[in-house]
Amino acid sequence: MTPKEIRQMIREEKWTKPTSGLAPSYAQANLVVLPKDDAYDFLLFAQRNPKPCPILEVLDVGDPRPKITASGADIRYDLPRYRVYKDGELIDEPLNIEKYWNKELVAFLIGCSFSFEWALLEEGVPVRHIENGRNVPMYITNIQCVPAGKFRGPMVVSARPTPFNLVVKAVLITSRFPKVHGAPIHIGYPELIGIENIMEPDFGDPPVIEEGDVMVFWACGVTPQAIAMQTKPKFMITHSPGHMFITDIKNADLAL
Amino acid sequence: MTPKEIRQMIREEKWTKPTSGLAPSYAQANLVVLPKDDAYDFLLFAQRNPKPCPILEVLDVGDPRPKITASGADIRYDLPRYRVYKDGELIDEPLNIEKYWNKELVAFLIGCSFSFEWALLEEGVPVRHIENGRNVPMYITNIQCVPAGKFRGPMVVSARPTPFNLVVKAVLITSRFPKVHGAPIHIGYPELIGIENIMEPDFGDPPVIEEGDVMVFWACGVTPQAIAMQTKPKFMITHSPGHMFITDIKNADLAL
Repeated sequence: MTPKEIRQMIREEKWTKPTSGLAPSYAQANLVVLPKDDAYDFLLFAQRNPKPCPILEVLDVGDPRPKITASGADIRYDLPRYRVYKDGELIDEPLNIEKYWNKELVAFLIGCSFSFEWALLEEGVPVRHIENGRNVPMYITNIQCVPAGKFRGPMVVSARPTPFNLVVKAVLITSRFPKVHGAPIHIGYPELIGIENIMEPDFGDPPVIEEGDVMVFWACGVTPQAIAMQTKPKFMITHSPGHMFITDIKNADLAL
Repeated sequence: MTPKEIRQMIREEKWTKPTSGLAPSYAQANLVVLPKDDAYDFLLFAQRNPKPCPILEVLDVGDPRPKITASGADIRYDLPRYRVYKDGELIDEPLNIEKYWNKELVAFLIGCSFSFEWALLEEGVPVRHIENGRNVPMYITNIQCVPAGKFRGPMVVSARPTPFNLVVKAVLITSRFPKVHGAPIHIGYPELIGIENIMEPDFGDPPVIEEGDVMVFWACGVTPQAIAMQTKPKFMITHSPGHMFITDIKNADLAL
């Protein structure tokens, strides 16, 4: 099925589950929707922190239709599930956001690590959490993002145990994908970036580490959501974890 | 002299000439100052067009002091000459912008091709206009930028005639510098991107083309200024051509 066909199925609410594994050669995106008043600072935060917050597309104010990443799509309907927050509190997890949409909202589509995991797998670098059918382990680090207005806080990273003889290859492959987090931000010593217990991630599942694996850390798209949440915005909509927006952009086309 | 020392000399108005060749291993930046009301659309334009409009830093609203690219600097004084526009018309070319500054202004520092030219020269790729003491030739193309709000228009490119056996090397070198325009946008056939007469650039000097040179085109930082100008903003300040802001960032540190 093409991304367009999958989005249609989602729009008709025939698919309401996570999107992992759907149209695997196409980029999926995280969604953050904020009122116009917060959009400038959030866009600036992304500009200042491109590794955790690589923007694929910012939709026009009040317009739910992407122009760059997916033609004919509508982000009010085309994700399987959403989260709606008022004053930082979760108030709804609807299948569409028609009733919440208004002309003052701005939608941000943010690159997702699915794309570079696809590239790693294509080029023979194993990805342990995929092999084991788990969620990727994610950690809050001691690395502070560059603040922008009220948006400030630590970077969240995802970890992928990588065979020691493929670590350099993993760096080179992912460096070609700056729009989906790019090269790693740390290799080898979790304690140096403030991670005390590698087996106790802050989000996701504990890592599966095989003999000879070295821990490699990438900036994670959970960062902007976590930081937006912390500011308790008057109103915010995100995708529900794992329920992403499937674009028409091939992962391969995101490469430098 | 360090960038800081040069900025001090400029601040004291002891240096009022172009900055080309000063502190050559440090990045220089284009300046665009716009009122807050235009800043969101301009930032979005840059996000949608990172090759012609690679942002090094966006200063906080009303704050003339960079935090990322130069400590202790003040963009009101630290460029040798400015241009001030009202309703799209040039009204002044002052040595500082103290009397024009106000709390509603946002300053954008935009990456400049000096940085990747430094990298080309370091790695043995000749740059003809530098060899010949000329300005780089620049052309308006038929490639449309992705619009954002009122900011829309064609991409401007700079051209560097490059020995045919070094073209691939030039691509690889500049691809590592996405914050200063990155890899070329076209190689070899000016007419395919709407350039009719290569000897008649729209800005700068005509190219010096040696035997065996192939024309290589990069997105140019003149693009955002040209496009901002077209919208006739109520108020805008830019650097005077060639009179750039010298940052504390080494060119080498802009590489991926």
